[in-house]
Amino acid sequence: MTERRFDGIGVTPLSGVGTVVWYSPDAELDDPPEPEEVDTEAETARFDDARTTAREELEAERERTAERVGEDEAAVFDAHVQFLDDPQITDGVEERIGDGLPAEHAVSETFAGFIEQFEGMEGRMAERADDLRDVRDRLVRVLSGGERVNLGDLPEGSVVLAERLTPSDTAQLDPSKVAGFVTIAGGRTSHAAIFARSLALPAVVGVGDELHEVEDGTDVVVNGTDGVVVFDPDEETREAAAGGDDAEIRADPVSTADGTEIEIAANVGTRTDLGPATERGADGIGLYRTEFLFLDRESPPDEDEQYEAYVEALDAFPDGRVVVRTLDVGGDKPIDYLDLPEEENPFLGERGIRRSLGPDSDLFETQLRALLRACGSENGDGLAVMLPLVATVEEVRAAREKMDEVAADLDEEGAEYARPEFGVMVETPAAAFVADELVEHVEFFSIGTNDLAQYVMAAERGNERVSELGDYRQPAVLRAIRATVEATEGADAWVGMCGEMAGDPDLTALLLGLGLDELSMSAVTVPQVKEAVTKTSLPDARALAEDALDAGTKDEVQRVLTNNIQR
Amino acid sequence: MTERRFDGIGVTPLSGVGTVVWYSPDAELDDPPEPEEVDTEAETARFDDARTTAREELEAERERTAERVGEDEAAVFDAHVQFLDDPQITDGVEERIGDGLPAEHAVSETFAGFIEQFEGMEGRMAERADDLRDVRDRLVRVLSGGERVNLGDLPEGSVVLAERLTPSDTAQLDPSKVAGFVTIAGGRTSHAAIFARSLALPAVVGVGDELHEVEDGTDVVVNGTDGVVVFDPDEETREAAAGGDDAEIRADPVSTADGTEIEIAANVGTRTDLGPATERGADGIGLYRTEFLFLDRESPPDEDEQYEAYVEALDAFPDGRVVVRTLDVGGDKPIDYLDLPEEENPFLGERGIRRSLGPDSDLFETQLRALLRACGSENGDGLAVMLPLVATVEEVRAAREKMDEVAADLDEEGAEYARPEFGVMVETPAAAFVADELVEHVEFFSIGTNDLAQYVMAAERGNERVSELGDYRQPAVLRAIRATVEATEGADAWVGMCGEMAGDPDLTALLLGLGLDELSMSAVTVPQVKEAVTKTSLPDARALAEDALDAGTKDEVQRVLTNNIQR
Repeated sequence: MTERRFDGIGVTPLSGVGTVVWYSPDAELDDPPEPEEVDTEAETARFDDARTTAREELEAERERTAERVGEDEAAVFDAHVQFLDDPQITDGVEERIGDGLPAEHAVSETFAGFIEQFEGMEGRMAERADDLRDVRDRLVRVLSGGERVNLGDLPEGSVVLAERLTPSDTAQLDPSKVAGFVTIAGGRTSHAAIFARSLALPAVVGVGDELHEVEDGTDVVVNGTDGVVVFDPDEETREAAAGGDDAEIRADPVSTADGTEIEIAANVGTRTDLGPATERGADGIGLYRTEFLFLDRESPPDEDEQYEAYVEALDAFPDGRVVVRTLDVGGDKPIDYLDLPEEENPFLGERGIRRSLGPDSDLFETQLRALLRACGSENGDGLAVMLPLVATVEEVRAAREKMDEVAADLDEEGAEYARPEFGVMVETPAAAFVADELVEHVEFFSIGTNDLAQYVMAAERGNERVSELGDYRQPAVLRAIRATVEATEGADAWVGMCGEMAGDPDLTALLLGLGLDELSMSAVTVPQVKEAVTKTSLPDARALAEDALDAGTKDEVQRVLTNNIQR
Repeated sequence: MTERRFDGIGVTPLSGVGTVVWYSPDAELDDPPEPEEVDTEAETARFDDARTTAREELEAERERTAERVGEDEAAVFDAHVQFLDDPQITDGVEERIGDGLPAEHAVSETFAGFIEQFEGMEGRMAERADDLRDVRDRLVRVLSGGERVNLGDLPEGSVVLAERLTPSDTAQLDPSKVAGFVTIAGGRTSHAAIFARSLALPAVVGVGDELHEVEDGTDVVVNGTDGVVVFDPDEETREAAAGGDDAEIRADPVSTADGTEIEIAANVGTRTDLGPATERGADGIGLYRTEFLFLDRESPPDEDEQYEAYVEALDAFPDGRVVVRTLDVGGDKPIDYLDLPEEENPFLGERGIRRSLGPDSDLFETQLRALLRACGSENGDGLAVMLPLVATVEEVRAAREKMDEVAADLDEEGAEYARPEFGVMVETPAAAFVADELVEHVEFFSIGTNDLAQYVMAAERGNERVSELGDYRQPAVLRAIRATVEATEGADAWVGMCGEMAGDPDLTALLLGLGLDELSMSAVTVPQVKEAVTKTSLPDARALAEDALDAGTKDEVQRVLTNNIQR
């Protein structure tokens, strides 16, 4: 049998070998019986029972997700439970049952109306259509007595194939049984992709409809590094894959081939990310996103709760650096107690430091207090604090003044504290353009390539129509990075990177050549990037960076990179 | 009596002297009578009559606006007429009349519900709340027999004070009677501001609630240059204002004090802008926005209709240059026949050249055909074509190839045509970063500072929470401009500017010092900028630019500018 290869988007640099298990959650309904044949009382009771079952399932999945993935991801289940109890929905279903429809058809018709309504709306609201589909499918499945395709009880070595994977789906997956997954839809930032990185599963997404050709039980190799899926692989492909993902874990800091130590750190978005970060050999945390402490709750965490969380992270890396980013929220995130504005372009709105120096200044003060106290804790030496979305010198000055005030208050109170390293994210083009001014006020920069690429290219990373344009291999993005690093030369500041780009081992040489001192990434790619560092010599890397900076197009940049790898 | 001075945002560089006329369209309703006292049949008839009257008013205002301001602005009245006929609204009102409310109260209550609903939504939908308020006020006024405050029949020399001015309001204003206006709300991009610039009226917006202190009949000076309104002005203030706005009209091109000719052109957004552009002495058109040809209609304009429009503009400037920007639309504009996507951040979405090389490629081809043919017309020599929102070299190459194809087709057909100058807007940070690559493919750049500042600073210009941050005096914006100009040095290309910044006479010296060859602006400011050019010597301007580029903050930039003016 000859191999069949499909291209998609690799979302973790891991490979896996296994056997195809198709996961198709769509239940198809038969035509409904005549209305007079329907026992409306019995159907209403069935609907109520189905809601109870669905609620129990959702609560269990919520708990599992909170444990395995984090509070942020788990919150989606709360929205699902709310839909189960929404009177507009339950009334609609009961009315249709009253008209003589069986419960599953009544559910299907009622949800169809709401799904259509939300699909016609903008932004966040449109996303609710997906949640509604998820809830509808669950209710219809329960009502049809359909066995759930039990993603938690798959044979070992399963490679799951699906149209897409929802949060409910991924929450069920037992990573110890699953060798990887492949989806028809989805991009680098889809839920499935984030999930795969967080659990270190080989995964390829966005393969397209031709995936339907493949049958259950087919042998498959998932190569997340190259974004390729091979069905009926021959022995050679299979062996290459089996050998591809056991990168050596290096617990100690690594150096380039010519002896310069480079800090390789992990990005941490939830408490549970700390485990993988240490296990995969990160030297520290290069980006600790504090949003998870604030999401999915009724009120903001108080100073002590934050202090505990920061100390926990510092204790996980007693010898390493822990870079905590202050709260980075804005109009694109649902946090009820913050009263976030509805904005037409939330990514160009009141986000990050703009809120911390504006409407959220009280929260900012509390967070700084917790951070300064954590810096005074046993392993607090390594703490660094960084500001998100900085665009002007004034913002940095104002934040520093706030920190001075907080320190003075703590002094007065006789509290134990210390001053952390102080730096800013470089993620607006403005920050790159005035980096030479900003550097006089900070100890470090961390380049956030996801946002930087988005703003430089004026192309939203989550918008599939333009996401290609926002690629970090764009010459304009490389030049913005170079301009930032150049501004630190001669200044007493280090410069790191904490966007997606930092975790791509194919780019490690380029990034070192551009002059970065630190790279921070999803824990899963730490071993690959550490290995790439050991293989890089800085003079070669600098020559490579020069070539890449001379390139006029993304394709030319890619050619420079490809030639370098083949060399 | 001592002067009272209020600060706001000046939106035209004109001053005017006059007498206050307050315009407060809000009708207050008395408490309704008891339901049993209401003749529901008579009230329903009154409601129907009021709708008829309102419709007639709207149609008249629509026509007047289309003539005076343009189709784009007139379209808002179509939406208002639709609300009058919306069955959800009419049913709601009739139901409430049936419950015993008089017609005006029924209208008020019904609209309140919808207004609240739209206010809770995002983006475009939220704006409909304003339209609904406008329609509600109109109906209530008609029903209350209230005389319309007749903005079309004010005494000469009136300065209108208002909370805000809606499109319906400004459409009524007779500019020959009005000496200016002042609003409590609004920013630089509010409807009132755009309207003031388009009709060359002195205007200050965003003054704030303290404006309420001022009474009808007060003497007032509106200084749109400095954004100051002075009530009970003393003789000196009054004279300064009277002398301030009669800038000399210079019909011929002007040169700097040391003899370098600088092209001063007008931005044109509608057909009716052509008149003011020639009258105010523009050398040509530096930005011809073609969107107005496509808005507010059922299908796109065909090739011949476009050809006529482009020829009309070329004929208005037989000796000047006419820079036509190809269609620049995206998810933030309502054009039904284009099937524009709903995007979460439309300004970071599929706009401008992205659509012309993607879903709108047929429209792009038609537009290029019309443009190449117009270039072959009698006064076609001066035609230049420019691409919006360019971010990569590939886009420029692809557009050039398309133009080659179109030229080949026209050749084959034996059509009369010529090749226009070819250039790109520099409005993404990416274009500034790779300007040295882009310049090899074009004859000119035109820097669009509105979008450039928005993307560089990651701050939407229409979002009041961050608009301050997106100021074009930000050092990062100046540096992006400088980087763009620098890339053209030594290349055979000129570089212009067509954003708001170009029309600010306080910045003319700075912009010439930064190296710009052409400035294009609202027609109203052409005389002031031409005058500023004649007073500038390039060596001084370059020194000024150096100082401004060394500044680390917006305030420092402003200080550099202020010191220069005082010198």
